[in-house]
Amino acid sequence: LITSIKSITSILTSPFDFENKYSQIYKEISKLLPMDGMFLGLYLKENSLLHLIFIMNENQRFPEVTIPVESRIEKEALTKRRPVLKNNIKQSLNYLNNNHKVVRSTLAAPLIYRDQVIGLVSLQNYTSNVYLETHLEFLSLISGFITLDVINFILTKAREIEKNALKQLQKVSHELTQPLTGITGYCNLIREEISKDDPFFREISDMEEQALRLEKLIQKVQMTVHLNHSEIAKNNPYLNLLKILQLDE
Amino acid sequence: LITSIKSITSILTSPFDFENKYSQIYKEISKLLPMDGMFLGLYLKENSLLHLIFIMNENQRFPEVTIPVESRIEKEALTKRRPVLKNNIKQSLNYLNNNHKVVRSTLAAPLIYRDQVIGLVSLQNYTSNVYLETHLEFLSLISGFITLDVINFILTKAREIEKNALKQLQKVSHELTQPLTGITGYCNLIREEISKDDPFFREISDMEEQALRLEKLIQKVQMTVHLNHSEIAKNNPYLNLLKILQLDE
Repeated sequence: LITSIKSITSILTSPFDFENKYSQIYKEISKLLPMDGMFLGLYLKENSLLHLIFIMNENQRFPEVTIPVESRIEKEALTKRRPVLKNNIKQSLNYLNNNHKVVRSTLAAPLIYRDQVIGLVSLQNYTSNVYLETHLEFLSLISGFITLDVINFILTKAREIEKNALKQLQKVSHELTQPLTGITGYCNLIREEISKDDPFFREISDMEEQALRLEKLIQKVQMTVHLNHSEIAKNNPYLNLLKILQLDE
Repeated sequence: LITSIKSITSILTSPFDFENKYSQIYKEISKLLPMDGMFLGLYLKENSLLHLIFIMNENQRFPEVTIPVESRIEKEALTKRRPVLKNNIKQSLNYLNNNHKVVRSTLAAPLIYRDQVIGLVSLQNYTSNVYLETHLEFLSLISGFITLDVINFILTKAREIEKNALKQLQKVSHELTQPLTGITGYCNLIREEISKDDPFFREISDMEEQALRLEKLIQKVQMTVHLNHSEIAKNNPYLNLLKILQLDE
């Protein structure tokens, strides 16, 4: 058991990507208990959906899919917030298109973080009466480590979105410079050609003032948006470590 | 041992903040082995520094501090990437100002993530010959879970910085509207007062065109910056879960 825990945590902290990590964990769990399938899902409570981020069935990987929470065992694990064992389920898993596999034994453990159910890890075997209470206890134990890793995964995905937004802002904020330079240029041109007594002199001067304000604000946008290259990033131990870990470019 | 592992993972996934989590883990470890102090540090390899994010010494918490990697046991754990046990160290820990405590037994385990040493967890006892190999194995085992939690902590800190940047950008991007409206207003004013044959008509029209381009770009900036309220966030399972977990406001 301790050996298994060691292997699983070393897989979770390894350089493999999410998919490969869980393929390895699947193999590791297979050594301890008989299984034909495993899935890992994020729970979207509001809509009562499970977004499956890892699906392995009879040694075959399936792509991500969102399914409604329908099966009794999943509902029970998610709403009663406890690991569940059922040894005689007669219901096929629709998203796997394996309607011929109607009998199964299943273990399901909720992933709980900060008192919130964030997901579910489930193991299946297409035979009845396969699982023991000790198997459930094992799944329940490792669900803790999996939870920490899934939170990592979620935070990384969220950062990807946010970093993409920042990248897009970098691009757009550079595009701001050109039209502004155009406006400033025209103002200069006009002001040089008119005298101080010209009725438009005041307007043009005011316009130049506004353009100057705009220029300063645009510089501020560009500076904030280049956060990653800034002194803040260099001196911050957290951003520094993310660079060392190559989680940031 | 299994009970201890369960307690530690349940603390790590609990709603407590970082400081309270590790105060509880300290208590939990104290049940298994004798210790007077514990620290958790991030390793800044480039500068050979440890940024200590949790320090407990004789039941007293100390604030975050950055120290040079000087002690032999720390160096060995960090550079040889393996857990180290020393039962007769004669060197006081300067950052604790406890020069009178010169003898100690220490355990140190590196935190390794994706093949990179990201930090160190260390336990101390102010008596010599206290620790056993089994103690070191235990620390080594839990260092895996701690690593996953520390990565979470780092990602969360990095997101805080990035989200602050986005917030600042939200503010500045709104300020862009006012001077732009000013410029557009003056252009309108001038154009209404001059005829198509006026020498400035062309310049003013061009200026208006540039102002329009600027307006569209500014709108793009404002939209990107309001990412969190957007449809993307609503339909993305990861951002959605972060809201459920109240890790995002």
